[in-house]
Amino acid sequence: MKTLKGNAVVAQSGGPTAVTNSSACGVIEEARRHGDVIAQQFGANNGILGIIQEDLFDLGAESFDTITQLRCTPSSAIGSCRYNLGDPFRDKEKYQRILDVFAAHEIRYFFYVGGNDSMNTADKVNQYAQSQGYDLRVVGLAKTVDNDLVGTDHCPGYGSAAKYLATCVMEAGRDTEAMYTFDPVTITETMGRNTGWLAAATGMARRQPDEAPHLIYVPEVPFSLEQFLDDVREVHRRLGRVFVVVSEGVKDAAGKHVADQGTVDAFGHPQLGGVADFLRQAVSRELGLKTRYNKLDTCQRNAIHFASRTDSDEAYRSGQEAVHQALAGVTGMMVGLVRKSRQPYQCVPGLAPLAEVAHGVKALPREFMDTAGTHISEAMREYVGPLLRGEVPIRLGGDGLPMFSRFQRKPAPRKLPPFVGKN
Amino acid sequence: MKTLKGNAVVAQSGGPTAVTNSSACGVIEEARRHGDVIAQQFGANNGILGIIQEDLFDLGAESFDTITQLRCTPSSAIGSCRYNLGDPFRDKEKYQRILDVFAAHEIRYFFYVGGNDSMNTADKVNQYAQSQGYDLRVVGLAKTVDNDLVGTDHCPGYGSAAKYLATCVMEAGRDTEAMYTFDPVTITETMGRNTGWLAAATGMARRQPDEAPHLIYVPEVPFSLEQFLDDVREVHRRLGRVFVVVSEGVKDAAGKHVADQGTVDAFGHPQLGGVADFLRQAVSRELGLKTRYNKLDTCQRNAIHFASRTDSDEAYRSGQEAVHQALAGVTGMMVGLVRKSRQPYQCVPGLAPLAEVAHGVKALPREFMDTAGTHISEAMREYVGPLLRGEVPIRLGGDGLPMFSRFQRKPAPRKLPPFVGKN
Repeated sequence: MKTLKGNAVVAQSGGPTAVTNSSACGVIEEARRHGDVIAQQFGANNGILGIIQEDLFDLGAESFDTITQLRCTPSSAIGSCRYNLGDPFRDKEKYQRILDVFAAHEIRYFFYVGGNDSMNTADKVNQYAQSQGYDLRVVGLAKTVDNDLVGTDHCPGYGSAAKYLATCVMEAGRDTEAMYTFDPVTITETMGRNTGWLAAATGMARRQPDEAPHLIYVPEVPFSLEQFLDDVREVHRRLGRVFVVVSEGVKDAAGKHVADQGTVDAFGHPQLGGVADFLRQAVSRELGLKTRYNKLDTCQRNAIHFASRTDSDEAYRSGQEAVHQALAGVTGMMVGLVRKSRQPYQCVPGLAPLAEVAHGVKALPREFMDTAGTHISEAMREYVGPLLRGEVPIRLGGDGLPMFSRFQRKPAPRKLPPFVGKN
Repeated sequence: MKTLKGNAVVAQSGGPTAVTNSSACGVIEEARRHGDVIAQQFGANNGILGIIQEDLFDLGAESFDTITQLRCTPSSAIGSCRYNLGDPFRDKEKYQRILDVFAAHEIRYFFYVGGNDSMNTADKVNQYAQSQGYDLRVVGLAKTVDNDLVGTDHCPGYGSAAKYLATCVMEAGRDTEAMYTFDPVTITETMGRNTGWLAAATGMARRQPDEAPHLIYVPEVPFSLEQFLDDVREVHRRLGRVFVVVSEGVKDAAGKHVADQGTVDAFGHPQLGGVADFLRQAVSRELGLKTRYNKLDTCQRNAIHFASRTDSDEAYRSGQEAVHQALAGVTGMMVGLVRKSRQPYQCVPGLAPLAEVAHGVKALPREFMDTAGTHISEAMREYVGPLLRGEVPIRLGGDGLPMFSRFQRKPAPRKLPPFVGKN
């Protein structure tokens, strides 16, 4: 395999996580060690959109400290987007533009941190480059709090969101325990458009039988409002209080989202939300129990202040591995994680074809939930337990608040006319 | 002043905080040092309700470690309630019952950790005891994330909730920054039924001009939906993204809560909530901007995992001070905090009459907000800044999640027939 000399672009896509920047940090720091091959690194503002718009900045101009501190900076510091590129052969204008931008900046390495829609984008860019004979190495990096990617044991980002959510459930669960004479029911809504990985992870908060959460609802188990109300009534009768965790994506037996408001996002996925509020109203109305709800929304995916060290370190190592693989000639692959040993836990980076990741969704196995489908099984505890371990040391300012990294974003000089196609 | 020998009851009331148990810990540990005067300490299950129901447990049976670890345990470990006792002279049955329970258990010291409704309860119990010639020392301990008590510079519980919320806004603000091409507007709802202290504290998250939060709405500044939409439109035009923080209690110029759903709690306060969702819909509909919202609800008041050490230590010292004062003969007073020095920050416990605290609400001064009323002023930064400093070291289990204290709750033997009055 001949060495492919050229520049690299690092981009992030889709919903941020607490460790998306750890992945990027692993890429950037490792690529800097191979400056003989990768002379320059660019960041793309707003993911693939920034590439189309030739809106790049010079990662080489960023200080050592700015890059290192990415490991304790949440969200997507380079910039993200949700953007559907369309089909590379019917709608080739944008793909050709991407190659033009790559060629103009001598980019031969494209590192894309994202979920399945982003891996789909990376895959199509890789296919198009090959069809045009443009020598390009495209390596994706798994990232999503939803943990729903195939081709990986779990996804960087998931462990941190899971650890934070489980902690919030422990804490808010103590609130319900103290206030049950006045506020007997609390519902916490988690992310998880299609899968219940995040909601299920909060089951780890329960170390003793009567602790929160008492009931967990995931999209993989068909939801029935009648059964839900019976479940709540039964726990309330037994304990005098009920702490519920519900995934935003719970669906009834016909597959209809409980909180479906009929709107869709850029990829055609239903726009959800409001399921906790919907259930709160149902409990108040049908059972006459005062009910409150927590909706942590984007807070849950950015909580670097209580992130998992295991998760953060795995994200970083995935970034390093992506560079190693790309330098070794790999393209069209995603770096995910392979669990080599369960006891003791050992996970190493591994590869999966982008095309496979792009079109798959990994559901929570039914056996990770208990028989009733309203709490987790021992199998889930074994799976998720190790992912929550360890703390990420963050830098704090004199004001007691976290210090995050911020790029200076020195623009890469534009070499092409503006893109005039529709985007 | 003669020494009053007798037992003590420690109770908690109203909404929990991350440091309500630090206050209780200060009381319990200090009272244990005075075992020659206070022979026994009881905890009251469910606040004043537990006293009426003679539902007490033996704090003396709890281990040293269980008590010490209260300092890193959120919520109200002893148990809380919201319960309106009514007027002590028109509706004296319950007050007499409280004295009967105190007499039966030789209780001469009543420590009540709570907000203004709870101080009102403590005040009335104190008055009734005096009217009956029952020698009792009643000392309240300030506690509320709302920070709306008079007679104290600030309230234990506030600093921790403020630190956590500001951190969440920094983190979720980075999410909006990364995702603005897809999710340009985020609204975070904070607690604050009558006052904007918590919402305003998130202003500390903004260290640089364009950082989140961009707009803050508090109940002390009359809310206009038209002005709000103009504000959002203007920030969006300038930055392409908008991060809004809104207090649950924002009101229009006529004093009507924006999210008033017409329901009231046990004290007759309007039951609020849903203002962020209401505003989300307004922004989507009127400005055509995709909007999401975070509602941290009870998570914000129990976040010991990222609490303020300053706050926790002040709560603990307030607990110690309550015991010192009660032993010195003080009754009918609340222990609050007095700021002795602004630079360097120095705060010491101080006393305020329960009756004064009971009937007051301390609003956020208008000068703590900027001219437009949509962000904080330098005066607010000076006031709130020191309250966020320092971290509370929490104990973590091998599973990566916090370890909290849990009482064994050995019941105090009942000495009276059940209370048959209505409660």
